Amino acid sequence: MNKKIKGVNLGGWLVLEKWMSPHLFDGTNADDEYYLAHDLSADVYQARIEQHRANFITEEDFLRIAKLGFNLVRLPLPYFIFGDRKPFIGEIEYVDRAFNWAEAYGIKILLDLHTAPDSQNGFDNGGISGVCKWASEPEEIKFEKNVIKRLAQRYGNREGLYGIEVLNEPATNEIFADMQRRYQPRDSAMAKGSAPITFEFLYQYYLDCYRLLRPILPADKVIMFHDGFNIDKWEDFFKQHDFENVVLDTHQYLMMAEIRNHDLSITAYQKTMTDFGKKIAEVNKYVPVVTGEWSLFNSYTAGIDTNGGINPTQQEFDGAVHMDKEKLQKIYQILWKTQVDAWNQGIGYIYWTYKLNIDTVNEPAWYGWDCWALQRVVDKDWVKLSDI
Amino acid sequence: MNKKIKGVNLGGWLVLEKWMSPHLFDGTNADDEYYLAHDLSADVYQARIEQHRANFITEEDFLRIAKLGFNLVRLPLPYFIFGDRKPFIGEIEYVDRAFNWAEAYGIKILLDLHTAPDSQNGFDNGGISGVCKWASEPEEIKFEKNVIKRLAQRYGNREGLYGIEVLNEPATNEIFADMQRRYQPRDSAMAKGSAPITFEFLYQYYLDCYRLLRPILPADKVIMFHDGFNIDKWEDFFKQHDFENVVLDTHQYLMMAEIRNHDLSITAYQKTMTDFGKKIAEVNKYVPVVTGEWSLFNSYTAGIDTNGGINPTQQEFDGAVHMDKEKLQKIYQILWKTQVDAWNQGIGYIYWTYKLNIDTVNEPAWYGWDCWALQRVVDKDWVKLSDI
Repeated sequence: MNKKIKGVNLGGWLVLEKWMSPHLFDGTNADDEYYLAHDLSADVYQARIEQHRANFITEEDFLRIAKLGFNLVRLPLPYFIFGDRKPFIGEIEYVDRAFNWAEAYGIKILLDLHTAPDSQNGFDNGGISGVCKWASEPEEIKFEKNVIKRLAQRYGNREGLYGIEVLNEPATNEIFADMQRRYQPRDSAMAKGSAPITFEFLYQYYLDCYRLLRPILPADKVIMFHDGFNIDKWEDFFKQHDFENVVLDTHQYLMMAEIRNHDLSITAYQKTMTDFGKKIAEVNKYVPVVTGEWSLFNSYTAGIDTNGGINPTQQEFDGAVHMDKEKLQKIYQILWKTQVDAWNQGIGYIYWTYKLNIDTVNEPAWYGWDCWALQRVVDKDWVKLSDI
Repeated sequence: MNKKIKGVNLGGWLVLEKWMSPHLFDGTNADDEYYLAHDLSADVYQARIEQHRANFITEEDFLRIAKLGFNLVRLPLPYFIFGDRKPFIGEIEYVDRAFNWAEAYGIKILLDLHTAPDSQNGFDNGGISGVCKWASEPEEIKFEKNVIKRLAQRYGNREGLYGIEVLNEPATNEIFADMQRRYQPRDSAMAKGSAPITFEFLYQYYLDCYRLLRPILPADKVIMFHDGFNIDKWEDFFKQHDFENVVLDTHQYLMMAEIRNHDLSITAYQKTMTDFGKKIAEVNKYVPVVTGEWSLFNSYTAGIDTNGGINPTQQEFDGAVHMDKEKLQKIYQILWKTQVDAWNQGIGYIYWTYKLNIDTVNEPAWYGWDCWALQRVVDKDWVKLSDI
């Protein structure tokens, strides 16, 4: 891609997150896709998940994303995408459809392997909350590699393919304690053996993945690596190896800045993101950097300290201060511009996310969370279309 | 409402039509909601329908409809809305939510009782295809009246209520033969006794409904009557009775013009709709007239004679001619303006519909059908926003 990446994630579609489509979890105790599949009867799980997949993202969404001027979607996929890990139901046919939509409307797809068996991060979006032991299981490491290999074989020659990100957000010790604070395991026996993923493991894993994918993918297709929550760890790795067409993915959220700085203010957000933009500029000298996830969400406009983004499906927040529309617009426009300026020190950005099905009117606890959805950001006029 | 009604139907949400959300019917032989509920196991039906209801129309849609400048949504409801007709599952809580959304975003709701037990029209959207015998069943007539009474009691004082339409599209002999041609009953025994609804029946039924609702509804809330597919039949009815705040609803589709004229051309469409606008102007002298359903859909731009709108879930059409975007835009803009000019001879219009989940890319048989969805009309730039 010759111009900057202006992308949006299709989060919550083929990889579930309860807070993004809470109705899918109605009447269950499940907090993640693992337990949704295990708690429901097989036919009810199938009925729910198939309706979700067929309806959450559709042709209309690709049409509108293109019309809004975006040139890329990042598509999170689960490890069971090919349907070989029961009780989960495969969904590769939706990826096929997505490629046809993307090509029809002139946008590119970044495939992102977002989960791993027994999880690479313990987040709800890693498939099973509070468990993080994939990296200690050689058979599952092999399985995971085989998934990206099959994705490369299936989509490598598609015009709509931008590239493949081999693994989303491996939890190194930069984030592991925060994960444990936010995501309790339901079954502590399953969580036993969970540990941070080391950078040494990651370097080797990424190298293996590169060597696996590069011969399959055409030269113009990108191979992408997530930075494991520390962008400073990658200089030697990229300088020591003669990689062709690779990109480093970094995820930066205002709520992570809140955790680090304990300061919920626009000025603090601006400083953090501007500083990070400078860092991106440096790293971008030896490897192209994309900000593959970021958002407008922050505790200041949510009107309450969310403790780094604890959401209303996890904890009830009372007493949030609601801002008027003009003030919200002003702040969101500042936060949008500051962040996009930072991300454009690299090769561009991918907003998290396009769509949520939360209801801020009937369930006011969701106030402030709607800015996670690009749809809402646009339709609420929070950001000028000319700034997007 | 002092200005013209600029509305859109929320079709396919709380009353199903297979062609509007075909995936909801995947793997069944059902052509309508009656058989969907009877063919699936109870828990799978529940899982599918609840996911559909929670996701097909959401807060985001009300937000966007308001942002596009629409001031009203027409909300089709089934007779089992209150949950007292098994195996159907009630859904009144979605209407509650819709009122909160409408009021939050400053638009009005027209409640439209769209179906009746054993059906008032035999359309798929009447609940059971090919059956039309409600009007011969005194107990069901009483039941139907009780539904509108309960709707009036529940929502009469809501700021967001525009009014209540007591019965959608009763099939008089103006349309009955066409219904029978398009919708075969699955069980001919159930269809036995089906017959056109007479205008005499309708006059009396509407009078009864008016007398039932007027004392419940505040004076500023409208009571609406569908014209039974003949707008010429109502002069005496409205002149003989001293109604307060009533509106006559007429539905005009280009495909109905095709059936009458056997001429698939833009000129023919324009003439038909312009003539109909003149008729609306006349009738509007003695009763306000809204065009409560209309659309851009026509066989000419669909590129094939659809026999009055037979859709791809009913019959495979091969060989449709695909027009380029510029030509489509030009024709749709003409058809939009011509029709809106006609409808504005009365008190305004309500487009059918806001949303469809059909896939014109992966299932090309749907080419041309996407213009039924206002979302697509806007996002495809088929009509200028300033003309809407």
